[in-house]
Order: sequence, then structure tokens, then C-alpha cells
Amino acid sequence: MHSPSQHHRKGHYMANLEEMGKRAAAAKYKVQALTAAQKNKALGIAADALMDNAKEILAANEKDLANAQAAGMHPGLIDRLRLTRERIAAMAEGLRQIAALKDPIGECLEEFDRPNGMHICKVRVPMGVIGIIYESRPNVTADAFGLCFKSGNAAILRGGSDAIHSNLAITNVLRAALSMSGMPEDALQMIEDTSRETAAAFMKLNAYVDLLIPRGGAGLIRTVVEQSSIPAIETGTGNCHVYVDEEADLTKAVNIVVNAKTQRIGVCNACESLVVHEAVSGRFLPMLADALRAHNVEMRADEQACSIISDAVPASEEDYAKEYLDYIISIKTVGNVQEAIAHINRYNTKHSEAIVTENADTARQFLEGVDAACVYHNVSTRFTDGFEFGFGAEIGISTQKLHARGPMGLKELTSYKYRIEGNGQVRT
Amino acid sequence: MHSPSQHHRKGHYMANLEEMGKRAAAAKYKVQALTAAQKNKALGIAADALMDNAKEILAANEKDLANAQAAGMHPGLIDRLRLTRERIAAMAEGLRQIAALKDPIGECLEEFDRPNGMHICKVRVPMGVIGIIYESRPNVTADAFGLCFKSGNAAILRGGSDAIHSNLAITNVLRAALSMSGMPEDALQMIEDTSRETAAAFMKLNAYVDLLIPRGGAGLIRTVVEQSSIPAIETGTGNCHVYVDEEADLTKAVNIVVNAKTQRIGVCNACESLVVHEAVSGRFLPMLADALRAHNVEMRADEQACSIISDAVPASEEDYAKEYLDYIISIKTVGNVQEAIAHINRYNTKHSEAIVTENADTARQFLEGVDAACVYHNVSTRFTDGFEFGFGAEIGISTQKLHARGPMGLKELTSYKYRIEGNGQVRT
Repeated sequence: MHSPSQHHRKGHYMANLEEMGKRAAAAKYKVQALTAAQKNKALGIAADALMDNAKEILAANEKDLANAQAAGMHPGLIDRLRLTRERIAAMAEGLRQIAALKDPIGECLEEFDRPNGMHICKVRVPMGVIGIIYESRPNVTADAFGLCFKSGNAAILRGGSDAIHSNLAITNVLRAALSMSGMPEDALQMIEDTSRETAAAFMKLNAYVDLLIPRGGAGLIRTVVEQSSIPAIETGTGNCHVYVDEEADLTKAVNIVVNAKTQRIGVCNACESLVVHEAVSGRFLPMLADALRAHNVEMRADEQACSIISDAVPASEEDYAKEYLDYIISIKTVGNVQEAIAHINRYNTKHSEAIVTENADTARQFLEGVDAACVYHNVSTRFTDGFEFGFGAEIGISTQKLHARGPMGLKELTSYKYRIEGNGQVRT
Repeated sequence: MHSPSQHHRKGHYMANLEEMGKRAAAAKYKVQALTAAQKNKALGIAADALMDNAKEILAANEKDLANAQAAGMHPGLIDRLRLTRERIAAMAEGLRQIAALKDPIGECLEEFDRPNGMHICKVRVPMGVIGIIYESRPNVTADAFGLCFKSGNAAILRGGSDAIHSNLAITNVLRAALSMSGMPEDALQMIEDTSRETAAAFMKLNAYVDLLIPRGGAGLIRTVVEQSSIPAIETGTGNCHVYVDEEADLTKAVNIVVNAKTQRIGVCNACESLVVHEAVSGRFLPMLADALRAHNVEMRADEQACSIISDAVPASEEDYAKEYLDYIISIKTVGNVQEAIAHINRYNTKHSEAIVTENADTARQFLEGVDAACVYHNVSTRFTDGFEFGFGAEIGISTQKLHARGPMGLKELTSYKYRIEGNGQVRT
């Protein structure tokens, strides 16, 4: 067996995009024909290979870290880039967890007979080739491979330039593991050239790629939506709101807003904006402000709310549209639930929205009227997550309505086909 | 009540795209809140209005026909453009049939509880605003409206310039009917300016349009795939094959190929190419050629098949990739089912593919291995159709894998959201 770095040195990744597309297209037919047992075995071998080759992966990661430090990268971002033995163990564990998930392929989604005797079965099949464009964190490489492979797809990944050495090292290990398992190593390919030009060309590779998923910041998502001619899924941006109704249990409301805002600030399901009913703002906002001050959260509020919270600063129009990913919250006062719904539908990114109320009818209006992947009643927005929903690992959170919405697990990486069986039926 | 033509004269359609987007966005929240009974009643009133205003619609159609004749349009295309009282009655009947279909909105697709007590329901919801770009036949206007409206969506339509007077007349009648039913008339809007520039701008209207569906020829589909930044569904192109295996019942095979090729030549589910096993071609091709000659079908074949069919002409590489939509068929000889699968996956458009064989294992290999929306065993490809599948009217046949594949009916015009209910759950 060749060591992963030999694979790399031999120029396995110098192939251009067209060649990579062809290889993926050839590999996809082999991957889609694998049984669950074959795929799970390969995932186990891949997990072991990550552990066995940790030294090599860490050495590659050191190069990325050195480059990042030389370039003056923010310490927070350097931390996201850093791999450790523990983080590699977590990547391996992630692959084992994916192996433990139910294989979605081959499931019969619907089955029926037609009057002419045709039997029709709508059966779940893989997408084919999935492209993923992502930023910074190298652990996404193993996650994305695991989810694509278990759902019967070949994957072409394009990670960020910051993590390219780590990403290639991880890819080499996983490809060698596939090869060892008798699987097509082209089920996983990494684009080595991290230029914008190559990324742009990748987004036009319709001839070979069935689905493109961007994982990263708002800029990346926007670029993919605007430029990709491959069907894409918009993910991740979350300008999430909590609406505190006049009939809210105010203790629940404080807990939910504080949790959604501060439990983890850099994530797409964090709360960025509070909407509060004017009948309750006089009692609620002082309670909430006390709790948020303890977390050093800056409050940017409309005039009504500013008159109640002495240290709030005036919110601008832009504040309401902003995903802060920071210890900042915007506050908007409304006269009723319909105003709250209208405000949220105007500014949100269709991700996760919550109402706090004890009135079931008001809750129903909100859950029906708000346009978002996940709508919550008396629950924190922070639960929009594949694991929290019980789906297992996720490839991202979709904020578009086509194909998949909310947490995207294995099923969301599949398509279907109709299988029609008969005995000579023709159309008259 | 204003007559439809007054609506038109008053410049209701002079609004620019941005304004149309805003109107659709406002209307969508009203449409999504309608009950099935409300929607069905409005569809019935719309059907009656088409009949009541037939004279006006026919007068508008006369203008389109006069323009088409002056421009020297092909008689076949003029026939597609022509409306008659019977065709208007068929449009009205189409709306009544849509009213009779089950309302897909509000269906609970999955429901489960989480260990922390959250109750999660995945519920079917409308897409929001659907854009449809289509060519020539004005009856699509009423069909598209009916399907979008019944599935709780607002629609912005962009028909071809050839049919613009007919399309606007139909739209005016339907909008007036919506208004009469107390429904938002902006649930249906028609783009009056049929220039390419406006179509290109429409394809970038992501801020308001959730899904774009092209209905038309290969050129239109390609333009939408390449240019649209709105999530789109590729429809319609069908380079469909029938593979006749060495263990085929040859009588069934002749019937199926003749039906798939000749029953209606201009449709996407017609057979364009025959793939035949070499062990059976000597017996089968003479039988088939006799039957095809009776329908004046030109045969373009590889060397092996040409040596059997004296009047076949040699097929070029391009022939295998071509959707003829004509009395022409290409013929390819293969040595086994895997070669047949490889040939089909190389040249097909992922639409509909059939195998004729009495061997169940060979059929299984074909149905699994061929990448297409619909895979048939001993059945003509002509059945890929919403009515034939029992789904009712369709908006098109999807040939992409994202979101919907094959016949697209009401369900395929919907999305879903997760509704999460709890009693104060926060994430720790």
C-alpha cells in the first residue's frame, strides 16, 4: 500500500476539473450499488485510518497553522483551523456515527398499481455526485465525505485555501482507506487549486455534478446562489428572532431569549433579534436587560424599547437585517402578533423563529404565518440542528424551500426514481 | 365589476418586475392561508369565467394568429397557438379537475417527540411564489395558474411573445375571477414585456421568487439552467431509449418500441433511440423495421444494425445524443445489459428509459443501473405523465434530481417546515 503522502506526491490531485468530474461520474455508479454493510465497513476502516495517520494529518495542519500565523489570522479563526489528536478522534467518531445511521438508499417511498396493470414504485436513490464548497474548518472534510458516501454519492470537495494542507492530508487518508476496502477512491476528491477562478468553474460543472452545497459565511452562500448553474442548496445564514407575546410566561421568555442569544453566539441558529409586544414590554424588557447585561450583550432598540432600557442604543434599519454572530441583539416593539409576523417575514433569512406565548391560538397564527425552516413555540431557536432533531450528523441547514429545508442529514442527500413494471403495456 | 379588458387597459400589467415581485410576495401570505374549500370555489368560478369570456379570449387569440401568419409561422406551430371554444372548455375543465384533487397543504409528513419533550411536526407548506417561463401554447396559462393556486402559491408567469395577447386575456379573466371570489388577484400575474432582457431579469428575482420552472424546448431549459439564480427545475428534454434484451419477448418489444416512437412524436417521453442485444438483433430488427416502415420512421443505425436493416442509414455520434421529436430513431447494438446501461447513461437526458426482457435479474440490473426519472420494465416510455401516474395535471416532467423527479403535480410545488412545540426548552 502506498502511503497517503505518496498518493499526493504522485499528483493524484493535479487532474483538472473536467477529469475530476469524469472520475466522480465513473465512481458514482459503483458507490450507488454498494450495500449498507459494504459502506459501513468502509466507513469503519476510514475512521481507523484517520487515527492511524494522525501524525501525518497533524504535520500537514502545522503548515496551515504556520501560514495562518504568518498572515496574521485572527486567533479565533486559527483555533477553528487547528487540529489536535482529540479533534481527529472526533472526526473518526463522526464517521462511526454515520456508519451507525440507517442507510436511506433503496427505501420505497410510495408504491401503487395503475388500472392498466402497471406497478409503480417510487424508490430512494442517491443524488449521484455532490459538490461541497466550504471554509476554514478541516473536520468538514471527513464529515462531508461520510455523509455523501453513506447516502451513496461520490463527492467533490473544495475547501478553503487556509486549510488546504490539512484537507489534502485528510482526503489522502480517506482515499487510501477506500482503496483498501476495495471501494472506488474517486468517491472522494478534493480540488487542490483553491483559487476563485477554479471555484467559479466548479460551479458550472453541471455535466458531472448533480448538487452543490455551500457551507460557510454569507459571502460564500451569495456567490454560489448567484454563480452556480448546478442546482444548489442555500444554507446557513440565520437572522433568527424570538417574539415575546403579550401572553408570554415572562420567566420562560427571559430563559429562551438568553439561551438563544448567548449559549453560542457564532452559530446560525442563535437569536439576533427580539420582537416584543408593547403590552408587556414595560415589564419584560427590564427583566431581560438585566439578564443580557450579565452576558455583556449590547442592545440596539427602537424608540419605545429605548425608553424602557436606559442603556440601549437606537437600532438602525440595517440592524434588523443583520446576522450579528456577536454579543449584540436588536429589539423591535409591535402592537400584535400579525405585526410581529410581518416584521419577521420582512427581515428574516427563513431559518429559525420562535414565539413565547401561553395562548395557543396566537402560537398557531405565528407558526403558520412565519416563513422559516423551523418555527418554535416556547422553545429556543438553538435546537435547529441535525443531532437535536434526532437525524444524526448534518451537512448543513437549508434556508431555501426547494428540495430540503432545515437540518440536512442523509435523506436530504438523496433523490428518487420511479420504477415501473408491467407486461407489455403501451399507450393508446 | 370591471371587465377584464378594462383591467388590461388600466395598465395593471405595466408594473415592473420589482413591483410584480412585491405584489406576489404580499399575495402569497393570503393564498397560503386559504382553506381547500376556498381555493376550490375560486377555481370553479375561474373555470366559469373562462367560458363566460370565451369571446374576448378568442378575439385576443385572433390577434396572435394574425401576427403569426404575417410572420410566416409553421402551420404546426400556428395550430398549437390556436384557441377554439373547445380548447377553452378544456382549459376550464382542467381547472375543475385541479379543484377535485386533494389539497396537499398542511399534511403532516413526519411527527415525533424528542427526549427533552419537544414535539416536532414536519408539515407541508406552499413554496411561496413560483415563476414559470413557457412557450407558445396559451392553455399553459390556465394550467399553471390552477396548479400553483391549488398548492397555495402565488404565480408570476412569463409566456412567449407569440401568445401574448391570448395569455393576457386569459390572465385578465382569471384575475377578475379571483377578485370576484374575494381572493387576491395578484396570486396570478403575467409579465407583459416578452423581451429576452426582461426574461433574464426575471431569472434573478430571488428576493421574491422561490422557484422557477421553465416549460419549453431545450434552448429555453438551457438558458434557465445557465442564467437563473432562482432555484430552478430542469424539465422536459427527453432522449429516451428502449433496450431490447437477448431474453426479450420480441412481440412485446416491437409493440413497445413502435408505441414509444410513433404514438406521439413531439413529446418528451417518446423513444428516440433503440438499444438492442446482438444475440437477438438478427431476428428482432427485421420485425421492427417492417413495423417502423409502416409509420415512415427513418432508422439511423450502427454498422451491425445497418448490416441487418438494408434501408437504415449510418448513425453519427450526434444521433445518439439527439432528441429528434420526429419520425426518426437511432439504433445501437450492444453485447450485454451492462453495455446497454453504459450507453444510455452516457447519452440520455435522465427522463424515461425502458428495458424489454423476460429475465427478472437483467431487468433489476437495468432498473437500478440506469440513471433516469422513470425506468420501465416491459412498458412503453410514453407513460411518464402526471395523469398516467394518477397524479392529475402536471406542471412538467423534471429531469433533475433536486427536489422533484419525473411528473410534477401539486405535491411537487410544495415545500415543508418544521413546527416545534415545547414548554420552555433551552439548549445546554
